[in-house]
Amino acid sequence: MRWGDMDAYGHINNVQIVRMLEEARIAAFGPPRGAGQPGVDPQVSLFNDVPDGTMALVVDHRIRYVRTLEYRNIPAVVQVWIGAVKGASFDIHYLVLDPVTGEDCVKASSHLAFVDEATGRVQRLTPEQRQRLAPYVH
Amino acid sequence: MRWGDMDAYGHINNVQIVRMLEEARIAAFGPPRGAGQPGVDPQVSLFNDVPDGTMALVVDHRIRYVRTLEYRNIPAVVQVWIGAVKGASFDIHYLVLDPVTGEDCVKASSHLAFVDEATGRVQRLTPEQRQRLAPYVH
Amino acid sequence: MRWGDMDAYGHINNVQIVRMLEEARIAAFGPPRGAGQPGVDPQVSLFNDVPDGTMALVVDHRIRYVRTLEYRNIPAVVQVWIGAVKGASFDIHYLVLDPVTGEDCVKASSHLAFVDEATGRVQRLTPEQRQRLAPYVH
Amino acid sequence: MRWGDMDAYGHINNVQIVRMLEEARIAAFGPPRGAGQPGVDPQVSLFNDVPDGTMALVVDHRIRYVRTLEYRNIPAVVQVWIGAVKGASFDIHYLVLDPVTGEDCVKASSHLAFVDEATGRVQRLTPEQRQRLAPYVH
Repeated sequence: MRWGDMDAYGHINNVQIVRMLEEARIAAFGPPRGAGQPGVDPQVSLFNDVPDGTMALVVDHRIRYVRTLEYRNIPAVVQVWIGAVKGASFDIHYLVLDPVTGEDCVKASSHLAFVDEATGRVQRLTPEQRQRLAPYVH
Repeated sequence: MRWGDMDAYGHINNVQIVRMLEEARIAAFGPPRGAGQPGVDPQVSLFNDVPDGTMALVVDHRIRYVRTLEYRNIPAVVQVWIGAVKGASFDIHYLVLDPVTGEDCVKASSHLAFVDEATGRVQRLTPEQRQRLAPYVH
Repeated sequence: MRWGDMDAYGHINNVQIVRMLEEARIAAFGPPRGAGQPGVDPQVSLFNDVPDGTMALVVDHRIRYVRTLEYRNIPAVVQVWIGAVKGASFDIHYLVLDPVTGEDCVKASSHLAFVDEATGRVQRLTPEQRQRLAPYVH
Repeated sequence: MRWGDMDAYGHINNVQIVRMLEEARIAAFGPPRGAGQPGVDPQVSLFNDVPDGTMALVVDHRIRYVRTLEYRNIPAVVQVWIGAVKGASFDIHYLVLDPVTGEDCVKASSHLAFVDEATGRVQRLTPEQRQRLAPYVH
């Protein structure tokens, strides 16, 4: 959480929570390929390990704000796992918890697809990608 | 749209689209009461016209990214209307269109509730609030 | 100004003011070439009219926050003009005013240069670019 | 660095670098008092340890972008120290380095003052505040 993620209500802003979900997704499954330079290997190499010119696009977000997330100068806890895996897309689920009280603050899911940048066509998940996701499916 | 709403893919970022939905909601139904100074009356006085100490909180967002929204230096078109109105909450629906091609880019809805800042209790919609929303229910 | 540009102090955040300066610069001198689709012609075609593969980079910002900028649901007034023009760079100056009281809130300048994306080399301003900037030099 | 801090040029955006400076300042000298809940003690208790109703306001920023900062999924290195300390204000200096190459990317300073929220009056630094800053003055 950044101090600047708070809005005039003095809580972490609902939009910035979507940014935090993005960061959690990237921490777990790697940064999108393309811009940027190497850092460390993510826990699961997924987004960083697609063919050149493939983009990971968000098809939808469903976000439920269960409890106001209060800013603290320590990281929020975000649990991330995989839901339904289809032919050419899959769901990522998130649970955001207050890092001190452990209370649920946000429950969310995103439906993602890999798309070819040049043609705009959706790319089927490869057997290897499915295998990497498998241990995290709940 | 701001140029800075684009991400490294060169499209309007999915998180920034949630910021645009917030702006569209505020343009239609007024800025949240509290911080800030007077500007112009919104089309419908709702968020700006709650009792002192009442916050408008987002309970959930559902956002479907139908088509990549491309940055242009002209405003995107966002249609906003009201869906279900319950005792103490209501839905706002949004349709974001490319301002040149008129193509649908984002379909979304937010469930909102009014909450008392001091007690955290949800506030029932008043008859007057319902009356103001009525013409925009579809 | 967006409502979300406020921080927990209930004022427009100093970082978001830098975003507003970017938007003012783009409104006056056009959006950077590259990503994005056509909209309207800017007042002065500068950033949008560089050779392919040329980036406009900020070399420095100097920003003086004279008075807190309060959020209003009407645009802030930003005056933009050109300062020193050198061989391969130039200054943009900004004055941000409260749109109701007319009070000065922010005085700033940015030093910008055009850089070739492939080689990283700074590009000299062309005679035509100088001519376009000339009427706005103060 | 967040992936979303990149702009359409594929670099960390100059505005988001100002956000990173804010985060570095807060990591070193504590989060502003007011909104938010307790986390950990900062290295130096300054912003978090002011009297109730006192705001830390940025008076100016000077930011020099020496080299493009590339996104990596590891933290950038930000060195933070104190410059001039005056009666009622002080300077924070920053040096942002690429975490892999160690190259200087951004050199910046911010002039800050403590202001009473109710009266708008600048507050003199207390002897204790000066003492806490002293070891970090260069």
